[in-house]
Amino acid sequence: MRADVFDSACPSRTVLEHVTGKWAVLVLVALNREEHRFSALRRAIGGVSEKMLAQTLRTLEADGFVQREVVPTTPPQVTYRLTPLGRDITAHLTGLMTWIQDSLPVIMAARAS
Amino acid sequence: MRADVFDSACPSRTVLEHVTGKWAVLVLVALNREEHRFSALRRAIGGVSEKMLAQTLRTLEADGFVQREVVPTTPPQVTYRLTPLGRDITAHLTGLMTWIQDSLPVIMAARAS
Repeated sequence: MRADVFDSACPSRTVLEHVTGKWAVLVLVALNREEHRFSALRRAIGGVSEKMLAQTLRTLEADGFVQREVVPTTPPQVTYRLTPLGRDITAHLTGLMTWIQDSLPVIMAARAS
Repeated sequence: MRADVFDSACPSRTVLEHVTGKWAVLVLVALNREEHRFSALRRAIGGVSEKMLAQTLRTLEADGFVQREVVPTTPPQVTYRLTPLGRDITAHLTGLMTWIQDSLPVIMAARAS
C-alpha cells in the first residue's frame, strides 16, 4: 500500500505531524548543526519550556530521528544527536527554514498589503 | 538584521509556525497540485474540520502564500490557489512530504525497535 499523508488513517500523517510540530523543526535543525545536551538545546531554542522540549525529544526519539546517549557520570550526562534517518528528514526542514529566513522581507511586505 | 527562527521574537518564527501548522502543510501541498474550491479542498484533506480549514486558509492568505478568488455568481464561488510566494515555500514542503511517504517503512521499523 502506498503511504498517503492526505489520508488521516495513514501512519505517514502522524510522522508529518511529529516533525512539523511546534518545536520539532527547531529541535531537528539545531541537532543537525551539532549534538546538544538538554540544557544547551533549551538555550538554543528561544521560548521552549523544559516540558515541551522533553516531550518533543521523546517523540522524535520514538520515530527514530533522534538518538539519546547517556554517559553514566554523576550526575549522568545526556546528549542528543540526529540518527542518519533524522539527518535525511532534517535536510528538507533546513531548506524550508533557510527559505523563510531569506524571504522574510517579502513575506512581511505581503502581510502589510 | 538577519532573520533567525531560533529567536522567539523574530517574525520568521511566526511564519515557520504558520506553514508547519497541523493543517497548513497539507493545504499548501494540495493547492500546489491544483487550485481548489473550499469544499473540494476539505474532501482532499482527510480529517480536517470546516473551522480549522477556514482558519488555516485565512492565516496562509494573510502571509501571502494563498490567494482567494471570489466569482460573484449566486451563490458566490470561492477558489483558493497558491501565490508565487506560496509555490516557492511549498516546494520545500513537497520534498518533506514525499520523503516521509517514501521512508515510511524505515520509520515504522525504527518505531518498532
